[in-house]
Amino acid sequence: MYSFRNDYSEGAHPNILESLLRTNTEQTLGYGEDAYTQKAQTLIKQHIGREDVVVHFLVGGTQTNLTAISAFLRPHEAAIAASSGHIAVHETGAIEATGHKVITVETEDGKLTVAHIASVLKAHTDEHMVKPKLVYISDSTEVGTIYYKEELQAIYEYCKAHHLLVMIDGARLGSALMAIDNDVTLNDLANFSDAFYIGGTKNGALLGEALVIVNDNLKEDFRYHIKQKGGLLAKGRIISLGYIELFKERLFFDIAQHANNMAMLLLEGISEAGYSTLTKSTTNQVFPIFPKEVVKKLRENFDFSDWEEVDEQNMAIRLVTSWATPKEAVQEFCMELKKIK
Amino acid sequence: MYSFRNDYSEGAHPNILESLLRTNTEQTLGYGEDAYTQKAQTLIKQHIGREDVVVHFLVGGTQTNLTAISAFLRPHEAAIAASSGHIAVHETGAIEATGHKVITVETEDGKLTVAHIASVLKAHTDEHMVKPKLVYISDSTEVGTIYYKEELQAIYEYCKAHHLLVMIDGARLGSALMAIDNDVTLNDLANFSDAFYIGGTKNGALLGEALVIVNDNLKEDFRYHIKQKGGLLAKGRIISLGYIELFKERLFFDIAQHANNMAMLLLEGISEAGYSTLTKSTTNQVFPIFPKEVVKKLRENFDFSDWEEVDEQNMAIRLVTSWATPKEAVQEFCMELKKIK
Amino acid sequence: MYSFRNDYSEGAHPNILESLLRTNTEQTLGYGEDAYTQKAQTLIKQHIGREDVVVHFLVGGTQTNLTAISAFLRPHEAAIAASSGHIAVHETGAIEATGHKVITVETEDGKLTVAHIASVLKAHTDEHMVKPKLVYISDSTEVGTIYYKEELQAIYEYCKAHHLLVMIDGARLGSALMAIDNDVTLNDLANFSDAFYIGGTKNGALLGEALVIVNDNLKEDFRYHIKQKGGLLAKGRIISLGYIELFKERLFFDIAQHANNMAMLLLEGISEAGYSTLTKSTTNQVFPIFPKEVVKKLRENFDFSDWEEVDEQNMAIRLVTSWATPKEAVQEFCMELKKIK
Amino acid sequence: MYSFRNDYSEGAHPNILESLLRTNTEQTLGYGEDAYTQKAQTLIKQHIGREDVVVHFLVGGTQTNLTAISAFLRPHEAAIAASSGHIAVHETGAIEATGHKVITVETEDGKLTVAHIASVLKAHTDEHMVKPKLVYISDSTEVGTIYYKEELQAIYEYCKAHHLLVMIDGARLGSALMAIDNDVTLNDLANFSDAFYIGGTKNGALLGEALVIVNDNLKEDFRYHIKQKGGLLAKGRIISLGYIELFKERLFFDIAQHANNMAMLLLEGISEAGYSTLTKSTTNQVFPIFPKEVVKKLRENFDFSDWEEVDEQNMAIRLVTSWATPKEAVQEFCMELKKIK
Repeated sequence: MYSFRNDYSEGAHPNILESLLRTNTEQTLGYGEDAYTQKAQTLIKQHIGREDVVVHFLVGGTQTNLTAISAFLRPHEAAIAASSGHIAVHETGAIEATGHKVITVETEDGKLTVAHIASVLKAHTDEHMVKPKLVYISDSTEVGTIYYKEELQAIYEYCKAHHLLVMIDGARLGSALMAIDNDVTLNDLANFSDAFYIGGTKNGALLGEALVIVNDNLKEDFRYHIKQKGGLLAKGRIISLGYIELFKERLFFDIAQHANNMAMLLLEGISEAGYSTLTKSTTNQVFPIFPKEVVKKLRENFDFSDWEEVDEQNMAIRLVTSWATPKEAVQEFCMELKKIK
Repeated sequence: MYSFRNDYSEGAHPNILESLLRTNTEQTLGYGEDAYTQKAQTLIKQHIGREDVVVHFLVGGTQTNLTAISAFLRPHEAAIAASSGHIAVHETGAIEATGHKVITVETEDGKLTVAHIASVLKAHTDEHMVKPKLVYISDSTEVGTIYYKEELQAIYEYCKAHHLLVMIDGARLGSALMAIDNDVTLNDLANFSDAFYIGGTKNGALLGEALVIVNDNLKEDFRYHIKQKGGLLAKGRIISLGYIELFKERLFFDIAQHANNMAMLLLEGISEAGYSTLTKSTTNQVFPIFPKEVVKKLRENFDFSDWEEVDEQNMAIRLVTSWATPKEAVQEFCMELKKIK
Repeated sequence: MYSFRNDYSEGAHPNILESLLRTNTEQTLGYGEDAYTQKAQTLIKQHIGREDVVVHFLVGGTQTNLTAISAFLRPHEAAIAASSGHIAVHETGAIEATGHKVITVETEDGKLTVAHIASVLKAHTDEHMVKPKLVYISDSTEVGTIYYKEELQAIYEYCKAHHLLVMIDGARLGSALMAIDNDVTLNDLANFSDAFYIGGTKNGALLGEALVIVNDNLKEDFRYHIKQKGGLLAKGRIISLGYIELFKERLFFDIAQHANNMAMLLLEGISEAGYSTLTKSTTNQVFPIFPKEVVKKLRENFDFSDWEEVDEQNMAIRLVTSWATPKEAVQEFCMELKKIK
Repeated sequence: MYSFRNDYSEGAHPNILESLLRTNTEQTLGYGEDAYTQKAQTLIKQHIGREDVVVHFLVGGTQTNLTAISAFLRPHEAAIAASSGHIAVHETGAIEATGHKVITVETEDGKLTVAHIASVLKAHTDEHMVKPKLVYISDSTEVGTIYYKEELQAIYEYCKAHHLLVMIDGARLGSALMAIDNDVTLNDLANFSDAFYIGGTKNGALLGEALVIVNDNLKEDFRYHIKQKGGLLAKGRIISLGYIELFKERLFFDIAQHANNMAMLLLEGISEAGYSTLTKSTTNQVFPIFPKEVVKKLRENFDFSDWEEVDEQNMAIRLVTSWATPKEAVQEFCMELKKIK
């Protein structure tokens, strides 16, 4: 049974395991002070095209979000997020556990706009309310959509004019950057945010996220925060070796492209079979709407998540592709779908 | 140059990498809900000899300490630790960051006793002070010593009589269990604590600690806490595969034994060269005291940490051995030491 | 210029100041361990009609909410509140600052229902989300409405069946209990909640809230939490002397009745002048909707808060009455209103 | 039975109650935005002799400490305190509950020195440990001693050179400033600290502490923190009216002088009776050492706290005087003491 449940079902891209094996007996310093970590940081900076940013490696997405946001905010300050945002829903209150409210805004497509942010500022007028301070956006979003360059720029410029920080959750950034309609580069992300991260876990790494801090004011003492929140891996190199493989050439982008291609193939099959989707995804998560009996039938041969009951007859499911998704699995899914119909 | 700096300088035991490779393309559920995780949990329970305990895998030691202690305590409750305890010194205030005071007691050998704990209880009399609730001990300790069975039992019985919890930091538990003077088993640890963990990072694993919760009252909802604190690894199997290798037979114990043997060899050489040590370690950390010029000379060919200035002429250093330490490196160190002298 | 801005514009009911004066030179124990505090606790228990509850005095509403909620919840647990709830909006993220998410539900009238609570439970399914644990309701609500007995009972029974706690914010409880449509008693509140408080600050006291803990599981060590959160007043008697005056007979209820009467008189005048209100308040806060030029005119002689822009022409304002509101001020307001028209 | 248990046994200085009565029916804005609060702030600034400081009124000492320290520090930063410091011992872990470690140093007389602070900096070397950032001192100290001007200046200059903040707990500042050996003024405190507070609760006020923020970097948004921590009193004027009475002329100093005089009288009697004291107090707390049977006898007619068992035969007790202590009570105590002897 093939699983479209998520993009972290398999281990790691073979090159990464290979690299772990090759270097296994070398001795390095711990806690990310080794030469491999330095090399991975350099490679990432080169891909971004900016020397002035700082790169840290953390174990996972929730940890990166909570460590960064709690380091960036003072106690009375809050984050603004789409109500579908990962920090708002799927992190067990991790941000609140560090003391900060997450102010949520309903969106149509998982994307925050300047208008959303402005409405939050308007509603928070004095010291009886939290002070909105950080705008959290995910690219790609939790529903598969992506931000365009002019949107990111507009948000960033509005935020700078209103003393807000911009933090981009890039757990699925690879997929966003390789989307067919994407016009954003790593360099743009650095120019239009105060911090962002380049997700490894969901794009072929064994584990790890690469947090890029752009804003000088946010750089000081950041390793203290990683350590305090339990995210400073003793064998730091097991993350950075992965990032070296991903960024020494363009593996990070190539495998994200593959994941997207597989998702587009799925969308094609879904459309050919006469079904629509819940959101307009151009990334590696797609959300087809099927009659419930179709969902039941599909589940006999495929694994995936229920997403949302659309109405009494229909259910939206989530299909996720990855660097490891074989074309054959996608084709079988599409054939099966047509057959059921 | 060989490094005795720590026991996480290398990658992982080859069997573990081999296991990652072998299973790499299999699809599993995320977040520790996969079959490998279940198997690892079962193996550990078998080694403990108790079916009723619960096992969770976390990424590292600081994270395990902060997640467990914040889950176990109510807001006004505090942990008691030796002033040399890892949570008291080397975790950047991770426990305090979750809201709890760490009450420290000076010890001679890094080990808490019933008398220490009783003195803390005596000093905390009412609601103007925190309420001591959890006794944190490390085995082996941060200075290489170990707890004996009667000591653990005495602490546990005292704690139960005084409504205190016992949590054992086992980041270097393997080394403790294989110490020449050890009389404690995994089963004893379960019988004389409310929770303890079996450290992987410092004993051959790529990463990970196995937290064993014994006390029924502490088991509920524990996965929520792991997730909230950022420690629920998406690809949970990369930790559990390691634990399967370590515990499917006795690899965990065998490699800890090797580390200890290498440390004992070091101690022999140090003693033969006429030097003493700061603490009576029978585990994989030894703390020889050398004249400063000897330290300087040794540093030309070996890497290690300074530990403490003993007096104007002498310095205690820390030498750590591991599963990966070659006998040759130890022999060279000892020869070099004699030569310098 | 008369102010309808809030119910804490004046000092305290004269009886309370008189009592402070009369006892001023007596020496008592500090921190609420004095005989006056004990007496006030006894009087409140008598009014509730239950011996088994525990009463604590805290300085203010935000402090009572944050102290109680953080004491009652474990780290991964969250509160459920109406989106208009005081803890959700007007406490500067005080609950989040203690580590807990406040899950909000949109309501029509500021009142949570079983259906609201059930919808939250349905949406929170596993450890990737917070665990809803405490239902927070305000009586009277922030928009002047009140809960009826069958509503409270339904909520309480649902909560007990689903392992949820019920906490009632009674900052304006006096006004709720004396509302013309009220059918709830202090005894009912104890029977249908795990904890509630009887607000003093907004009903004639100099300062202070009386927190009543009903659920036995929530009673242990509560004074530790008050102290830790900075709410244990050294001269505890200055709160309890107020509560003695309020509850030695029925002053608490009588002055709340007066406040409500004044509000009803305002509503009458508003209605007679041909205006409607935003919410159906039967308590001491009323929310008339006026054309903006009327608001501007009224402001020449009266002080009050803007509440919400209803449309381009009209504004809802908030008028608050209190124990101290003179009938003449209300009459003048109503006359002025008619005159403007 | 007369109580020397503490300096908050009585109500408030009569002038303060009188002032509450006189203004009781006036309407003012809430939350410290009223004219009385402004007037009290102005008076305090005049006494300090600096226009650039900011003054906030908070309810009590623990609350002032926790609000200020959590507002001033970033998550990984810690406070340094004497091990006898109020935040280290008697605030139920209030500082830790906001996420920050309190690093303690043993002192002989309750006073921190530059050497103490330097030793802490030396021990905290990297991101595996908290970053010491704020030096907390109490004047007068918890054992009745005071800081001299050159000591404060030395600490302040050292701290500025090492990027540390200085916060002075002035819960008993009045007593310190009026001590016979004092050479410090309110102006000096502003010049040699980043923030300090002028305690009201323990020097004649009904309640309240006046926090003075000197460092510009610490001023921004401070009211948010007060509100979030539950310390923004709705009827803010009840604190500020007290401070107006205390500072419109010199009542604050005069009554502190009286308290000190009474303490000195006690010391005289104690000395004449042939007893010594535990600490060299020149303020309103004295710590005589008596044989246990003398303590027992004294307790028949006087109330006070046990402080510390000095040896098997002798006990140090704590006697506290206040603005309200009658000379007669002191004389009776001294006579009684001589009689017992």
